[in-house]
Amino acid sequence: MEKVTLKQIAKRLNLSASTISRALQDSHQISPQTKQKVLELATELNFVPNYHASGLRKKVSKTIAVVIPEVADSYFAQAINGIEAVAQEQGFHVLIYLTHESFLKEQAILRELQNGRVDGVLLAITAETSHNRHIRELLNRGMPLVMFDRVCEDMETAKIITNDLESSYLATRHLISCGCKRVALLSASNSLAMSANRLAGYKKALQEQGHPFRPTDVIACSKAEDVNYFFIKTLLSNAHRPDGIIATVEKQATSVYQVCQELNLNIPQKVKIVAFSNLQSAAFLNPSLTTVMQPAFDMGKAAAANLCKVLKRKNLNILPETQVLPSVLHIRNSTG
Amino acid sequence: MEKVTLKQIAKRLNLSASTISRALQDSHQISPQTKQKVLELATELNFVPNYHASGLRKKVSKTIAVVIPEVADSYFAQAINGIEAVAQEQGFHVLIYLTHESFLKEQAILRELQNGRVDGVLLAITAETSHNRHIRELLNRGMPLVMFDRVCEDMETAKIITNDLESSYLATRHLISCGCKRVALLSASNSLAMSANRLAGYKKALQEQGHPFRPTDVIACSKAEDVNYFFIKTLLSNAHRPDGIIATVEKQATSVYQVCQELNLNIPQKVKIVAFSNLQSAAFLNPSLTTVMQPAFDMGKAAAANLCKVLKRKNLNILPETQVLPSVLHIRNSTG
Repeated sequence: MEKVTLKQIAKRLNLSASTISRALQDSHQISPQTKQKVLELATELNFVPNYHASGLRKKVSKTIAVVIPEVADSYFAQAINGIEAVAQEQGFHVLIYLTHESFLKEQAILRELQNGRVDGVLLAITAETSHNRHIRELLNRGMPLVMFDRVCEDMETAKIITNDLESSYLATRHLISCGCKRVALLSASNSLAMSANRLAGYKKALQEQGHPFRPTDVIACSKAEDVNYFFIKTLLSNAHRPDGIIATVEKQATSVYQVCQELNLNIPQKVKIVAFSNLQSAAFLNPSLTTVMQPAFDMGKAAAANLCKVLKRKNLNILPETQVLPSVLHIRNSTG
Repeated sequence: MEKVTLKQIAKRLNLSASTISRALQDSHQISPQTKQKVLELATELNFVPNYHASGLRKKVSKTIAVVIPEVADSYFAQAINGIEAVAQEQGFHVLIYLTHESFLKEQAILRELQNGRVDGVLLAITAETSHNRHIRELLNRGMPLVMFDRVCEDMETAKIITNDLESSYLATRHLISCGCKRVALLSASNSLAMSANRLAGYKKALQEQGHPFRPTDVIACSKAEDVNYFFIKTLLSNAHRPDGIIATVEKQATSVYQVCQELNLNIPQKVKIVAFSNLQSAAFLNPSLTTVMQPAFDMGKAAAANLCKVLKRKNLNILPETQVLPSVLHIRNSTG
């Protein structure tokens, strides 16, 4: 089937292409009779407006981009569902761009988004992202942008986060109250503000409980699963191994379970573990996993609501406000 | 920062806008000296071509759409990673559109994709999709499209599937060989070819082993998690409850574990379970979960490779061939 063009419709009706275009956009400059005629023929011929031309004309795409590190993680999968719930209600399409934790890819995507394909952006940065010039550039070009979960704290835009410092403080205190003498922290990154906050909460709890802070007990996660597995195995093979672990990335929890099985270390007798995780199966693991559950769905909703509000009213600017939604500690058998 | 336009660059250099445009596209009609001058100023002013105008001119977007039911499922999360691996290598962007198992949303998305935003489409249909006119329409408009996992068997395009019939046949036979007298099938849908094949494999195994087929032992999954939970609870509360379950959707496995815990039904003594699942934590569930693991990553790669090959060579058509990548049965403690 040949694609029908505006010009062909114009020729058939003996009208100009711009009249057809205006009629299809329900312009007040066109009479109801003409509109009716145009619509009938367009429907009959199954005419679809060209996206690029239509975007040029209207300067809006009714689309928002979600730029995130990955989807193979229940936090981001649930956050997307929250974003889509709001976007659908507000009449926006959602496009998902994955950075796969690559800073280079994040820069390329944000550069690409400068060219008007979308009306606004929701962003959670990679674990590698070491500066924010690419984000600032996009904002400077007038692109509405809201950050969530993994934010740049100094960025002048709306941010949706959870109480990372308090959550890891409570997780660490919980492990110590369960009898742990040495708690290790598996961190997501050396550069993320989120990770710095989780580290600060961990340090605060150690200090309060009179435990020394050992830099070697903090391990920054890699993009490669096998490298993380090796780090965790090395950590737990040590004679002076930790008896408590806080995994701040969901996948690390599975690696800890695997390593403990291989090294014959009983959880929770020998090693206790808390994970930042939204896994639905956490309660059915062997043993059931104590988790810090982030409000992923609600964070996605809040981020999208913030962005859509601004997109719907052109004269509105995004306020550089930070919204904090609390996480919840679910105590289960992996901490005894 | 104001956005720099082609016209402004043209004015500054005292050249026509079309000369600037051609220079930026490295046209042979423009002298190397002029190109150099244009490129330098464009770089200095941080000029970004308008996406819509650029799309109109080139008629390609170097983008493929991935239309899938959801990402909160490790099959699709892993398939996306396979798709991205190939797309990145071949220089294509990937946009993810989620249908959330809504047939209406799938139709709206495919209609939207007719307008040239992307060069090609990878599609896994919803559990609700009851006809394929919307897919045929997109194909008729010349959009290259490859289906994967959840395909329409009669669609004249490339399809990447796994051996669904054989997999559920082997899963059912395995449960019967473990002593199950009554095996129930939790199905994804009443309309998907994939589900029909899994049902056929289940029936084949029952028949071979001399077990009667009871239509009431096949339960079609709903979009709503709480409805599925209710179905499973009803099924397992029955005095004549099944002693074996095949969950063909990953999430159903967690629901079965939950219901068994609540009803105090020991897995595997009272109920044995096999799930179609790519969950990394399957081996660490209590008890560890016997799974049919689909080649998700490789299926994503194969689908993307098929599409990119055609997009790179305009004179090529997608051959209506079906590629079958086998799944693997991993036997663990949930089947005794």
